[in-house]
Formats: sequence, C-alpha cells, structure tokens
Amino acid sequence: MPTASNVVVAQSGGPSPVINNSLRGVVDTCRAFPDAFGTVYAAWHGIEGVLTEELLDLSAQPEEEIALLRTTPAAGAIGTCRYKLKDKQTEDFERIIAVFRAHGIRYFFYNGGNDSMDTANKVSQLAAQRGLDLVAVGVPKTIDNDVGDQGFRLIDHTPGYGSVARYWACIVQNAIEENRGACPSDPVLVLQAMGRKIGFIPAAARLADPDREASLQIYLPEAGVKLPELAEKVNEALKAHGCVVVVVSEGLDVGDIGASRDSFGHTQFSASETTAAQIVVSYLNKVGLAARGAARGQVPGCDQRDTAIYASTVDLAEAYAVGQKAVLIARDEGTGWMSTLLRTPGLIYSVAYDKVSLPQVANSERAFPKAWIAPSQVDVTDEFVAYARPLIGEDWVSVPLVGGIQRFARLRPSFAEKRCPAYVPQAYR
Amino acid sequence: MPTASNVVVAQSGGPSPVINNSLRGVVDTCRAFPDAFGTVYAAWHGIEGVLTEELLDLSAQPEEEIALLRTTPAAGAIGTCRYKLKDKQTEDFERIIAVFRAHGIRYFFYNGGNDSMDTANKVSQLAAQRGLDLVAVGVPKTIDNDVGDQGFRLIDHTPGYGSVARYWACIVQNAIEENRGACPSDPVLVLQAMGRKIGFIPAAARLADPDREASLQIYLPEAGVKLPELAEKVNEALKAHGCVVVVVSEGLDVGDIGASRDSFGHTQFSASETTAAQIVVSYLNKVGLAARGAARGQVPGCDQRDTAIYASTVDLAEAYAVGQKAVLIARDEGTGWMSTLLRTPGLIYSVAYDKVSLPQVANSERAFPKAWIAPSQVDVTDEFVAYARPLIGEDWVSVPLVGGIQRFARLRPSFAEKRCPAYVPQAYR
Repeated sequence: MPTASNVVVAQSGGPSPVINNSLRGVVDTCRAFPDAFGTVYAAWHGIEGVLTEELLDLSAQPEEEIALLRTTPAAGAIGTCRYKLKDKQTEDFERIIAVFRAHGIRYFFYNGGNDSMDTANKVSQLAAQRGLDLVAVGVPKTIDNDVGDQGFRLIDHTPGYGSVARYWACIVQNAIEENRGACPSDPVLVLQAMGRKIGFIPAAARLADPDREASLQIYLPEAGVKLPELAEKVNEALKAHGCVVVVVSEGLDVGDIGASRDSFGHTQFSASETTAAQIVVSYLNKVGLAARGAARGQVPGCDQRDTAIYASTVDLAEAYAVGQKAVLIARDEGTGWMSTLLRTPGLIYSVAYDKVSLPQVANSERAFPKAWIAPSQVDVTDEFVAYARPLIGEDWVSVPLVGGIQRFARLRPSFAEKRCPAYVPQAYR
Repeated sequence: MPTASNVVVAQSGGPSPVINNSLRGVVDTCRAFPDAFGTVYAAWHGIEGVLTEELLDLSAQPEEEIALLRTTPAAGAIGTCRYKLKDKQTEDFERIIAVFRAHGIRYFFYNGGNDSMDTANKVSQLAAQRGLDLVAVGVPKTIDNDVGDQGFRLIDHTPGYGSVARYWACIVQNAIEENRGACPSDPVLVLQAMGRKIGFIPAAARLADPDREASLQIYLPEAGVKLPELAEKVNEALKAHGCVVVVVSEGLDVGDIGASRDSFGHTQFSASETTAAQIVVSYLNKVGLAARGAARGQVPGCDQRDTAIYASTVDLAEAYAVGQKAVLIARDEGTGWMSTLLRTPGLIYSVAYDKVSLPQVANSERAFPKAWIAPSQVDVTDEFVAYARPLIGEDWVSVPLVGGIQRFARLRPSFAEKRCPAYVPQAYR
C-alpha cells in the first residue's frame, strides 16, 4: 500500500550537539529502502508540528544540506518542543491519528528522552486502538544521560551525553588554566553545569583532569552538600592550593532560586530568578575566602548542548547509528520499540545496537550511581572516569567553515500541503 | 656587559586565548639574538612576581612546552595579576629596581592593556632616575579592544580581541540554532558578553549573522538602552519572528547589581551579586513576553577569554608578531615603547608592526565608535563588520589532543634562586 508508507520524524525536549545526526541517520536509512519508506517528513517542532500539520518535506532537500546535518548542532533544522501530551488530552491524540491518516504516515520516529518515549508509546497504542497501521519507534537522546535503569541494561548512555561530557572536559581544562593563572585576584571560579537532579554532566568535569593534578571540586546534586559545607571545602582547597575551580550542578540544593517550570513540571533553571552558581558565588564572597580576591561565576547555559565544535566523534557516530537502527527496527520488528546501544563488556570499547520496548523506557529515570561519588563528596571515582572516558572520543570534529564562520545545514521551507482543518493544540487553548 | 642582559617578561590584567603566543614571540625572538639577550625569566603572576622575586626560568624549559604555548589559552603558564602600582607606592617601585639589579635584568617586557602600559612606563622612568639601564617595552593585549585612540592610529586592534570576536561569532551561531529550534517554549535567549563600558565584544555577535537572516539583537553599553525599551524591542522581534537571541553587555545599565570592584576600581561583573543577563531575563519574564514560554539566560564568563579552540588564526599570528616586535624594539630602539599593529589602508587586509610611546598609550581608552551603532540601537553597522571580519580568520586552529583532551604547555617550576630579602608588596600589608 504505497500511500501508507510515508514517514514522520520528530524531536522533543532539549537539543544536543548531535541530535541532527540521528535525524540524518533516519533520513539516510529510509532513503536506502525506497520500497518500504516513501516521503520522509519532519514534524516542525516535534509533536506540535503533527498537531498543527506542519510537515517539512525532508525528501525534497538538497543532498548537501542533509549531509551538513551531521555537524549542525541544536534543533534549528526541524525544531523541538516541550509539549506534554497528557492522557486526558484525547482530542490531541485523535488529531495526531487524523493527520497521520491524511498524509499516509505509517512510520513515526520520535527522538527524545524518557518523556518523549512515553509520548511515542501512547501514540503507538492509540493508533492500534483506532485501527491505524502505525509503527512508532523511539530514538534515544538526552544530554542528561538519565534514561534507562541503574544497571545500564536498557541503554549504556544516551547519544548527546558524550558530546556534553567532551564540552565539560574541554571548558574545565580552559577554566583550570584561567584559575591557575589568575590566582591572586580571582582564586575561585564557579561553573554551573546542566542536569536537573542527575549529576552525569557535572561529573564529566573530572575528564578535564583525570590524574587529579589541578585544584578542582565537583558538586553533584546527589552528594547533597549544602552551602556552609561547600564554603568549608572551598576554603580548604584555597589553603592547600591557592586557587580552585568549582563545578556545581544547576540542581544543587541552594534554597529558593525563584524557579520557573516547564510544561512537564521540570524546573527551568536558566529562566529562574537566580542560579545556583550565582548563589554559590555570592555566598562565598559573603562568608569570605581563605585567600585574597573574590569568587567569580560562569553559567554556560545552552552553550553546552548547542556547541558544534565540542561534539564527540564517538557520540556523533552513535547518534547516527541509533537513527539507522530505529529505521531497521521499524522495517523488521514493528511498533513499540526504542533503538538502544549497549556496551560490550571488556577492555575494548564497543557498543551493540539493539531495541528495548517503549513501555519499559517510558518515564524511566536513571540516577547517578552512588558508588561513583568519591568519599570526599566533591569528586567522582575512577570507575566513572572509565565509564565516561571512551564517550568523548579522541579527535576534534571537523565543522565546515565558510567565510570564517560555521556552515550549518539550511533546510528549504518546503512543507506538505495541509489536508486537515486548522487545529489549536489543547494545551494552548 | 653580560650580567646586564637578562630579560623579564610578565603579564597583567585578564588573559586572552592568545596571550601565551605573545609570550612565545618574546621568548623565541630573545633566543634568536643570544648576544643581546641572556636568560629569559617570566615574573610569576605579573609585577607581583617581580616584587616577590619569583622568576620562572623560561630559558630552561623544554622546546616542546614553549612551542605548545601557541595553543595554550589563559594565563596558567606564567600567571597574571591585577596589582595596581600607584604613584605613592614608592617602596614597591624601589623593590622592582632592586630585584632587576640583583638578577642582571636589562629588558622588561610587559604584556597587557592600558593600565599595564602605565605600569611599564612608570618602571621605565624610575629606572632612568635610579641609573639602572633598563629597557621597558609593552606588548599589547586585551580582549576589550579598548586600548588606543578613536581614530585607530595608535593601534588598529589589540591581540586577544580577534579570538574573543571569533568566540562570539561561533557561540551566537550555535545560540541561533538553539533559539530557532526551541521557539515555542524558550523564545528568548539572553547571552551576556564581557567588556565593561566598551561594546566591541558584544558587537562581534553580528559576525555570526552578517547578512542579518536570524532574529538577533545586540545591546552595547554605549547605546544606552534601558530595560523598558529593551523589553519593547524584544517583544517586537517576537511578534515578527517568534524568537530572538539577545546579546547584552555585562556593563548594560540595568541598575544595581551589587557590584564587586578590583584593585584598579573596575567593576568585577562575574563576582557581583547578580548579572545583567539575570536582570534582563527576570525583567522580561516579569513584564511578560509577546509569545508563549520564557526567557533564558547564559553567562559564558571567563570562557570567552580562555577558550583555545575558538582562537583566531589571524589573532594568533598577530599576537606572536607583537611579541617579536617588542623584542626588536628593545634591541634597536630602547626603552619607553609599546609594540603595535596598524592596518594598511585598502581592500586587502594586512597589518604593519610598529611602535608607539608608552606615555601615549598609558591610560588611553578607546570607546566603540558611535557611528558603528546602527540607528535601531540594537545592531552594529556594516562598517563595523568590515573592520572586525578579517580579525576572526578563516580556519579552526589546530589544538593538539592527547587522550581526547587538550594538551596544553606545562612549564617546569624552575625558579631563579632568590637574592633579595623577603618582601611583602605594599598593597598586601
């Protein structure tokens, strides 16, 4: 049935430096099987683009622009969203089915984290109930590395994490140079890492200095260190080394930050009235440092998840492969899966691509293993370093430059003609 | 007189991504003239290292580590300082002369901005009064590009600026991808650029989008836009484009930020109780956006001046050359100069290396030309783009990696034996 073989691919949640390479993996692999897959559409801004019937035709794009997706960071190419599809939003679900039907969509690939897999799962189930032959397959992505289980059996790590880990390894190396050189006037440099409740991102700062030669402290949200204890530990480092780089999680328990929340109910730290880094800096400068000078703060914010040049070549390859694998699963195994990557045990770093069921990963949440927090509470263990080190790769990625600046993919605004009545998503009424 | 030909090189003020390449230029060029220049010492943490007689022997370092200075950012190699030598600190000045005498120092190279040239000038004058045959020559450096005169006749641009401009070009490109992709939930992304009162750094954000295709607003401190007007302009952009990237100067007039000040009396924005970006974000979220979602903030802080991979290859070459030129001036022209670079008029970008007198540049301060602020007050003109574009170069710099992370220079802690009594700098008593 040729009219039933079109494809929708979409993204949800925060972007990553390699998210577009998963998109490219989906597009390239669909193109490789023209008998199975027809036109590939991107839903513009995730599930919102399905609801509003904004379907960007990826099959109509120049080859070169699709190729450039590899080194194009963030979600500017097809957009992402934080639209929460709650069970009671039945009209939204029916609308999705209607739009899919109208455009002959049989395949739905959804790139995201745990919340997104929940959405893909619900759409898959409703389609079955409504008699639509829909194959919904998830593509894993999140810089937080918080998808899956504690034992790393559902997924070893999520694509996106390796690149943000590489970002932190490099910028903390730079910060150590800054801090060492500037000691007398600026002995404390506080950097704030993303990662809500989960400490995988700040933990990656240790990769900057795996031999522990520099003065570096890492405060994971899981360690539960409070401000007075933090000040004490910072001053200990100042007495011993004269300077210290302090990496804190945005979710560090520093009291009220005037939090803003997104539609999933998660705190939006960068939209809050203040930041953990700011509170730590002000607190340290108020209680006083065991050195001359002042503490300074740095909040990289979205830069850590949208920077092209720090992308890990290992992460890039894996992000592409999970996109490929999702298409193979859709073709050969049917609906209700997420593609995944599992680490092969042993000394040699390698991963196998496999599938896990959407209900199993939907709303799963992995915490940072307690055993990987060092006894000092301001560091991670060598076991974490052994886990994370292979993910950042060995090389710089080659990001093309034109006119001295980065040449990112520019997709043509070629949208499918609308076939359904206009629709306002339920959450926006 | 062989005992009088030793060299001290030192740095002052905030670092840059290319500051160590100027250091390398000085070291390499001194080595090229062994008859004129003896041992090259680095004063550890600028003039403070002269006062405390901490002289790092650069002549004793492995060749490879000196070569690696090229791509080692910030001031970790030999340190910098913000020590203000006020006229009345006569003991400090006498101490400098005594330390120079004790170590047979005839050449003093001081790398920094306007304040540092003032220090170099004073040291040069006092040495002459005290009968010490000292040749003091300045090496220009500051990311702010605020050294020199309005007509660009003393210096076209300061080494360090081209790299921070390239940083802003690239991270704003990334932010535009982030902002475009995330629109529905995060329509406004506010990035805070360094640069006290001078807008050259935020202005460089325009290099990310020279053809003005994206939704981007740039608020220079010189434009004088206040918060209510800023909110109005942001909402205009939201109505027209649905999203906007807003680059603000850390020195934007947003009212009281609980400022911290350094020893030169300059505001230390990153040590203050809040930031311009935070105030802008909170203000926008309070007055409300002409779109769904919230404004988010990003404060790169020191990252913009200590990032290796965004260094401009043009800036690197120029930073090296002003180091070389300073040594040639010292050898051939004597004391009281700063090496400089002047742009050759015409279509082809090229610079000539020359000298200007220290008193002329000492405490000079260049403002961002009013004529380069666009009538909209939230942009810069094409004339600025034409000025700044050549400074960011055409290529990525090649930063060596070992074990997946950056391999920076590691100088041996080989210090000259102390010959003077212990001394506490006057400002620290």
